[in-house]
Amino acid sequence: MAVGPDLGPGREFDLIRSFLSDDGGLPEGVIVGPGDDCAVLEGGLVVSVDLTAEGVHFRPEWITWREAGYRAVAAALSDLAAMAAEPLGVLLSLALPRTAGEAVGKEVVAGGREAMQHHSVPLLGGDLTASASGLVLDAMVLGRARAPTLRTGSRPGDDVWVTGWLGGSATAVDLWTLGQTPPPGIREAFVRPRPRIQEALWLAEREITRSAIDLSDGLAGDAGHLAAASGAAFHLEEAALPIHSGLRELLGDSEPALRLALGGGEDYELCFTAPPGALGEERVGEFHHRFDLPLTRVGTVAEGEGVYLQTRDGNHRLLERGGFVHFQEGESV
Amino acid sequence: MAVGPDLGPGREFDLIRSFLSDDGGLPEGVIVGPGDDCAVLEGGLVVSVDLTAEGVHFRPEWITWREAGYRAVAAALSDLAAMAAEPLGVLLSLALPRTAGEAVGKEVVAGGREAMQHHSVPLLGGDLTASASGLVLDAMVLGRARAPTLRTGSRPGDDVWVTGWLGGSATAVDLWTLGQTPPPGIREAFVRPRPRIQEALWLAEREITRSAIDLSDGLAGDAGHLAAASGAAFHLEEAALPIHSGLRELLGDSEPALRLALGGGEDYELCFTAPPGALGEERVGEFHHRFDLPLTRVGTVAEGEGVYLQTRDGNHRLLERGGFVHFQEGESV
Repeated sequence: MAVGPDLGPGREFDLIRSFLSDDGGLPEGVIVGPGDDCAVLEGGLVVSVDLTAEGVHFRPEWITWREAGYRAVAAALSDLAAMAAEPLGVLLSLALPRTAGEAVGKEVVAGGREAMQHHSVPLLGGDLTASASGLVLDAMVLGRARAPTLRTGSRPGDDVWVTGWLGGSATAVDLWTLGQTPPPGIREAFVRPRPRIQEALWLAEREITRSAIDLSDGLAGDAGHLAAASGAAFHLEEAALPIHSGLRELLGDSEPALRLALGGGEDYELCFTAPPGALGEERVGEFHHRFDLPLTRVGTVAEGEGVYLQTRDGNHRLLERGGFVHFQEGESV
Repeated sequence: MAVGPDLGPGREFDLIRSFLSDDGGLPEGVIVGPGDDCAVLEGGLVVSVDLTAEGVHFRPEWITWREAGYRAVAAALSDLAAMAAEPLGVLLSLALPRTAGEAVGKEVVAGGREAMQHHSVPLLGGDLTASASGLVLDAMVLGRARAPTLRTGSRPGDDVWVTGWLGGSATAVDLWTLGQTPPPGIREAFVRPRPRIQEALWLAEREITRSAIDLSDGLAGDAGHLAAASGAAFHLEEAALPIHSGLRELLGDSEPALRLALGGGEDYELCFTAPPGALGEERVGEFHHRFDLPLTRVGTVAEGEGVYLQTRDGNHRLLERGGFVHFQEGESV
């Protein structure tokens, strides 16, 4: 995630924003600076970085080291998807606990490599150090985009779309936190996020996407980033949300299910806006057929600001941002 | 530091090498893969990443948070200098201890920004998370090189050169570890490393440099990387080594001074090879005048392998690699 001044609310983002706030205009050669999913340089080169820490993003009791490596790289690649960029390479840094053996490091890198191979992306380099305690993984991704999809392009009247299913990953975290074992489908959503790179390229080639973001903080929070960057309001519809089937099986159409679908982070699906009519039934079917993945219209863009939810009973709620906020008091995974 | 299969000996490097050993040839679009200071992509784009961990690379009792940020970014930029690349931008990731306030994060980033401003390099993005304990900083650097200087170009008969002074940074660490306060000049070597970017460009423009590396592991270890990558032996001369004046004042021409100058890491000077005669007295003077920095011939390249030291008494010693090895048993800063 590249970070910057146009993010939605939340304490973590305030902190980052304050770090970056003393920046002047864009330096020479930089087309998009911090604040979108990736920075964009002249020539369409895009770069982003994504940090994963044991005890914050995962716990070793939950997943294998290989899965931790896979997730870290997949999450970073997802930022390229958000820009409709073709991946060029990955740099992977590991701070490895002193108590961890070489085997742990190897497993983490093997997992990262698996995610790279899945998308035919080479490992370009990395760094390794001991860490005072938990594993910290930093994945830097490089890509190239002919016409990068930014967060700023949403216009009133656009439709809001998401790929895939929502809330699976956060449900796994909730179950683990409660000492339970997530069912396989839910577990899979957490350990094997699928960066929607080919999907984003498909949409961009057809000039469907006006603005896009990948869902790392949860739909409410990430739609908030799009809304803030575009200077518009997002109106989501509860009845339309593609809630993960595993989550629906567990919690039905309940308030907790809604909370997880909207506020649960790290689904790494795409949320994007498109002009009305740009995605007709035929195109949606074509997408579904091509990627074995649903494409769901979940709301509209309007004049104003903030993210609203039209509930099943017809009410409008202003949504609080519900993504992970790492620095909230007492917070841990 | 980009890592890979042609590094010199040492346990940390064995570990990294093993992670990368299952790689096939270079993927499409990649000119230099892991194993040099930076990876090089088609079009001359170079990328590298450098990881800094509290308790491994520094301790908070030694330096300020701002200095930690400065060092981390300067160390990463130094990899660009090793390739004779012009910097395009930096991505900075912070894993910040939960106990640290926002003020700590701000100071770290302010220090990183200072190093960037010093070299007119923009911050392109970053990421932030809580860490289970110490601060971990990862700095990714992007640059462009018309003709990147690799580690592989040394030829028998070349001279071996270094910029600046050796051993200052490691002396600071030794003194802190002994509970002493380093004198200002020695402290400065540790907290304000100067990536030799302009110096490297100056040398490359004049086609002086055949191969180059930046001194992060110490001259013995880094010359070992050059020797291994070039398939040659490096013969260094004790009497020629530009030992840091603060170190010489403390320890004279002693064995411990030699050990720090050869094995002490993180001087972030350049070590490079040049054809005999490429750097005559006039050019060295010009360099000195332009950068207020000495350029010292410290040895020669020969057929064979390994790094040797011709001592003052005329003996030849095969040098053990003496750089930081983060994973040695009982190791700590």
